[in-house]
Amino acid sequence: MDLHRRGFVALMLTGVAATSTARVAEAADDPLPSWRKGPVKQTILAFVKATTDPGDPRFVPPEERIATFDQDGTLWVERPIYTQVVYCFDRVPAVVKAKPALGDEEPFKTVLSGDRAAIASLSKDDLLKILAATLTGMDVDAFRGEAVEWMSRARDPRWKRPYGELVYQPQIELLGYLRAHGFKTYIVTGGGQDFVRAYSDRVYGIPVEQIVGTEGGLRYAYDSKGRPELIKEPKLLLNDNNAGKPEGIHLVIGRRPRFAFGNSIGDREMCEYTTSGSGARLAMLVLHDDAGREYAYGPAQGLPDSRVGTFTQALYDEAKAKGWTVVSMKNDWKRIFAFDS
Amino acid sequence: MDLHRRGFVALMLTGVAATSTARVAEAADDPLPSWRKGPVKQTILAFVKATTDPGDPRFVPPEERIATFDQDGTLWVERPIYTQVVYCFDRVPAVVKAKPALGDEEPFKTVLSGDRAAIASLSKDDLLKILAATLTGMDVDAFRGEAVEWMSRARDPRWKRPYGELVYQPQIELLGYLRAHGFKTYIVTGGGQDFVRAYSDRVYGIPVEQIVGTEGGLRYAYDSKGRPELIKEPKLLLNDNNAGKPEGIHLVIGRRPRFAFGNSIGDREMCEYTTSGSGARLAMLVLHDDAGREYAYGPAQGLPDSRVGTFTQALYDEAKAKGWTVVSMKNDWKRIFAFDS
Repeated sequence: MDLHRRGFVALMLTGVAATSTARVAEAADDPLPSWRKGPVKQTILAFVKATTDPGDPRFVPPEERIATFDQDGTLWVERPIYTQVVYCFDRVPAVVKAKPALGDEEPFKTVLSGDRAAIASLSKDDLLKILAATLTGMDVDAFRGEAVEWMSRARDPRWKRPYGELVYQPQIELLGYLRAHGFKTYIVTGGGQDFVRAYSDRVYGIPVEQIVGTEGGLRYAYDSKGRPELIKEPKLLLNDNNAGKPEGIHLVIGRRPRFAFGNSIGDREMCEYTTSGSGARLAMLVLHDDAGREYAYGPAQGLPDSRVGTFTQALYDEAKAKGWTVVSMKNDWKRIFAFDS
Repeated sequence: MDLHRRGFVALMLTGVAATSTARVAEAADDPLPSWRKGPVKQTILAFVKATTDPGDPRFVPPEERIATFDQDGTLWVERPIYTQVVYCFDRVPAVVKAKPALGDEEPFKTVLSGDRAAIASLSKDDLLKILAATLTGMDVDAFRGEAVEWMSRARDPRWKRPYGELVYQPQIELLGYLRAHGFKTYIVTGGGQDFVRAYSDRVYGIPVEQIVGTEGGLRYAYDSKGRPELIKEPKLLLNDNNAGKPEGIHLVIGRRPRFAFGNSIGDREMCEYTTSGSGARLAMLVLHDDAGREYAYGPAQGLPDSRVGTFTQALYDEAKAKGWTVVSMKNDWKRIFAFDS
């Protein structure tokens, strides 16, 4: 190797070292290191800068800084099936143990059989029966204990990790960034309010009182020792999907959000409601277009529009027309999970 | 006047000055200057000291410091009729103006007649018709605007003051004292959630997201310009009285309170639920026994137990048996209103 060559290597190494130092400096300054540079990241940074600068005409007083996030597919993985539905299936043996007669009844018999094809083809009514049997009939504290225990024990089939690790690292950074700028962050989910409350603080840093979810009725009763309890009833109070999201937001928060983040047709009305108020507003939608690192479904993949929980072509077109920011997992997120290298 | 006499006067003046200084010093140190010294005030001070001292076995982590207050009769005057019901009667002319046909229908005709005896004898069903007509059918933002305007304009008949001034000064001090010690203060009221939200921040320093109240259904719709709105529907979602209070607390807050304050049978379950958890707990009830400065009703006055919204004899007996603190307006409150001398 001649000197010229060695000089080139040295130059390369210097260059690498310089780049490396620059990257560290950038990361230290960068509140959103898992977001790639580009117009989407710039939109977030500009929105937060404007809404928190008292000299900016788009300034928003701290008490009005409400940010609402859908959960499934927006904050964590929703495929192949919603985590809460996995929980319900996993709870069936315990429910049947408590009420053995159910073991001879459908759809419980099918679930216990372990026949995956039969389970996958259960009807919507069967699914509702399973949800009612596994999510209601017990006190809210007992329910919470069971959900906490399951979340610590269950593993997803693809990554072999607890579901609480399947959260999107860019979104965890965004939640923290918003909170650091005085935004109050809420989850507004079609999932069960009590289910999400069982892990929201640990997983997202969001306390139980900032979870808006699908709500069932409660019955105030007394246990065998005369202590009061709140029994979860199989009665729907609020379906926190579609138009139910703005309704749930008003009931629990009482303010129109300034920032909303979703990923599916179930979040359309939340985005519409959020961006229809006066002053600075921002709506964003995650597009799942990264089959390698996560999943790909929605308009870019040509999947059917009608599938529940997806980013339909119609939503994509509306987002583009109304200036709602579409986030490409593939292009805008440098890293998907905290455990990614 | 001889020298001896002049010396006596000087001594008196010195004495007065010294007393006056002492009173100021006491007020500056005292977080609850409108509460008289005694076991009730001591109970509050001891509870807050224990629950906020990390070295005390009764310490409560900040996130669990939830304090819930009933409104009518607990934070402000509820006699002779609830303020929100006055609001509804006052709204009738505007409702009839918008729908003139109602003017020939009962109970609207009676309300418009101004015949006090006839109005006082309206049935419960008539009252519900008036509530539905005046509290529903409009967008939540429009409703809020009307309620804010009314609260600034209406005057109560006895004190001739805006209703927002008829709040109990000892309770305003208590709310501030709890907040200064990390408690999150909520209103949990049988009144309408949206009505109370219209003034809660200004009157109590409690933001809209910390109001749990009776909730009606909402309908997501579009106005003539295609903008989304949330229409208040004449459909009851949650009756936030009696057992409805623990239910509402769970739906909106998701935590069992550590401290609850009420004044009537409608608050019984809230007190029971609050004090049934583990660790430090405190329930308190205002007894209206001061006809001179406010009103007197309830067990001490021998009024019938069955009257809704009162402190019944049965509640009084239960409070004594269970260690819930009964607060005598007459004896425990030095001052009732901020405008009292």
